[in-house]
Amino acid sequence: MSVENVEGDCLGWAARDASGTLSPYRFSRRDLQAEDVSIRITHCGVCYADVIWTRNILKNSHYPVVPGHEIVGVVTASGPGVAHFKIGDVVGVGAYVNSCRNCEYCFAEKENKCVKGATYTFNGHDIDGTVTKGGYSTYIVVHQRYCFKIPDGYPPELAAPLLCAGITVYSPIIHHKMNQPGKSLGVIGLGGLGHMAVKYGKAFGLRVVVFSTSKSKKEEALDILGADEFVLSSDENHMQSLSNSLDFIIDTSSGLHPFDPYMSLLRTEGILVLVGAPEEVRLSPLSLIHGSKSISGSGVGGTKEIKEMLEFSAANKIYPKIEIIPITYVNEALERLIKRDVKYRFVIDIENSLS
Amino acid sequence: MSVENVEGDCLGWAARDASGTLSPYRFSRRDLQAEDVSIRITHCGVCYADVIWTRNILKNSHYPVVPGHEIVGVVTASGPGVAHFKIGDVVGVGAYVNSCRNCEYCFAEKENKCVKGATYTFNGHDIDGTVTKGGYSTYIVVHQRYCFKIPDGYPPELAAPLLCAGITVYSPIIHHKMNQPGKSLGVIGLGGLGHMAVKYGKAFGLRVVVFSTSKSKKEEALDILGADEFVLSSDENHMQSLSNSLDFIIDTSSGLHPFDPYMSLLRTEGILVLVGAPEEVRLSPLSLIHGSKSISGSGVGGTKEIKEMLEFSAANKIYPKIEIIPITYVNEALERLIKRDVKYRFVIDIENSLS
Repeated sequence: MSVENVEGDCLGWAARDASGTLSPYRFSRRDLQAEDVSIRITHCGVCYADVIWTRNILKNSHYPVVPGHEIVGVVTASGPGVAHFKIGDVVGVGAYVNSCRNCEYCFAEKENKCVKGATYTFNGHDIDGTVTKGGYSTYIVVHQRYCFKIPDGYPPELAAPLLCAGITVYSPIIHHKMNQPGKSLGVIGLGGLGHMAVKYGKAFGLRVVVFSTSKSKKEEALDILGADEFVLSSDENHMQSLSNSLDFIIDTSSGLHPFDPYMSLLRTEGILVLVGAPEEVRLSPLSLIHGSKSISGSGVGGTKEIKEMLEFSAANKIYPKIEIIPITYVNEALERLIKRDVKYRFVIDIENSLS
Repeated sequence: MSVENVEGDCLGWAARDASGTLSPYRFSRRDLQAEDVSIRITHCGVCYADVIWTRNILKNSHYPVVPGHEIVGVVTASGPGVAHFKIGDVVGVGAYVNSCRNCEYCFAEKENKCVKGATYTFNGHDIDGTVTKGGYSTYIVVHQRYCFKIPDGYPPELAAPLLCAGITVYSPIIHHKMNQPGKSLGVIGLGGLGHMAVKYGKAFGLRVVVFSTSKSKKEEALDILGADEFVLSSDENHMQSLSNSLDFIIDTSSGLHPFDPYMSLLRTEGILVLVGAPEEVRLSPLSLIHGSKSISGSGVGGTKEIKEMLEFSAANKIYPKIEIIPITYVNEALERLIKRDVKYRFVIDIENSLS
């Protein structure tokens, strides 16, 4: 395949238009600043966000789009102001690479909620005016604040999905105080996010009920992921038997689905947290008023939480289930992701397939 | 007008069918139990719930329906187990008259969230199997737990709307910790609930912004109720100027309305609390995910909160704005309520018009 810009020293794979087809693309990264680290990328997870922006689904893609925001790699250089990383460290980068650093949320290390908006790792506008390019590439330069040490011994290919899928379900568990042993958690959808929600839920001592539209996920949910109960969401009797029984629900489904049936499963003051993005949310107000229930949204997490999540995952031996692929397989992988044909996360072996 | 059951010693006004037309109706109240008080009703507020069940809008009305759940009156008798009320006390009764008294919510005096469901003051099923009958009547017998002392000096006709409209907006302010001076509160709709939300918001030191579909409410909102800002909800420029500026929104509107424009006015982690009941809630999931925002439902409040709300209202001289009417005007009043032609609550002068 041809490589457009032979001058750039970073080789990535980019989509050039809304077809979303990725192909090799050469570009330059910024020069290392005082507090930057340069990271040779070894692995990058494949997130549904990669589909969204390579295919211009939100009509705000800036081509060429180099996707990827579940990045793991090795530090190869660091600026003079970098205190916590040294050459050779295995580090991760998640869904954002910058923020204003000067608002109440940045001060609280909740940079994902930055008042001015965090800078996304790809298809974002960085402070220097360039469009950010993600982890389907050989290296990246990132300010140390948005870079995380992968705990010693944690396999780097398994760490990649933690940086988006992992934190996206870990963060609302902490924020909404779901981490209380004995409480019950419903998880809607058993994909990249859902399977991590089951694992964190069990690690926090929760009773975990998985809801899926696909009967084929039952055995896996119960026997391999350790969920306590599996519910086929079309089974109305089974659904009704769980009325008022769940303290929380994490809804990872991006498909259009009804909300009223799930709200009725929540106990009084229960919360459904939306981390997937279906086309719309539509429900009866009575589903919220009866029992003072809530629907909340959540997206990734702040740098403080990401560090805690990485440590928690390592300490509790929580590992995503992944399928390792070479970069040359990525177009097929994105097609399979759209069809939900993946258990449960593709991770691109950048180190051995892109050079 | 004729009175159907000449044997009952309680005279009320009831709807007999889905026309919702009310007319005199005689019935009996239960004998006084050990912990009951008997109350000669002096005033009863007119709530939208009265429209809902007299007209069978939810298809669960049990005719004849004697509506009314904003009841104020004078204690005329009390059982031997009644400790806190004596004959002559001015007391109130709100939207429920019973609960299981044996669940975590009843133990916490949040009986409105009773696991078995609180017994509504009218059109509810009481433990003795009878259908409850509300405050459009000469007297009521109620267990002391669901009866509240009206603070000395608080005009009884003004106390009536506190028992539903007042507590319905006071409770979420407390529950969601909106009562922090300097925070900003949006109030959607300026009816019975909305005008009380403005008053409580100001009493708690909040900046209060009123949203209405009717320009005619501007002067009243600002000059009489003391709101800080009035926004005509159809004024897109004005709406957009308030992006990310509100900490909370109390949505009292029962009309179908969009949610996305209001969610965009909330700050990060902001909450919209739904206390009205529009036909449906429909919004983009991104309205929740961006900024980790929430929509919650809320209905009335527990007995502990009702007592606090009554004391707070008296201490801060918070009075609903009402229009006093005789019972003979009630059919017209309900018609006007449907057309939102009331500032801001009808209160029936039971004492002087029903006998």
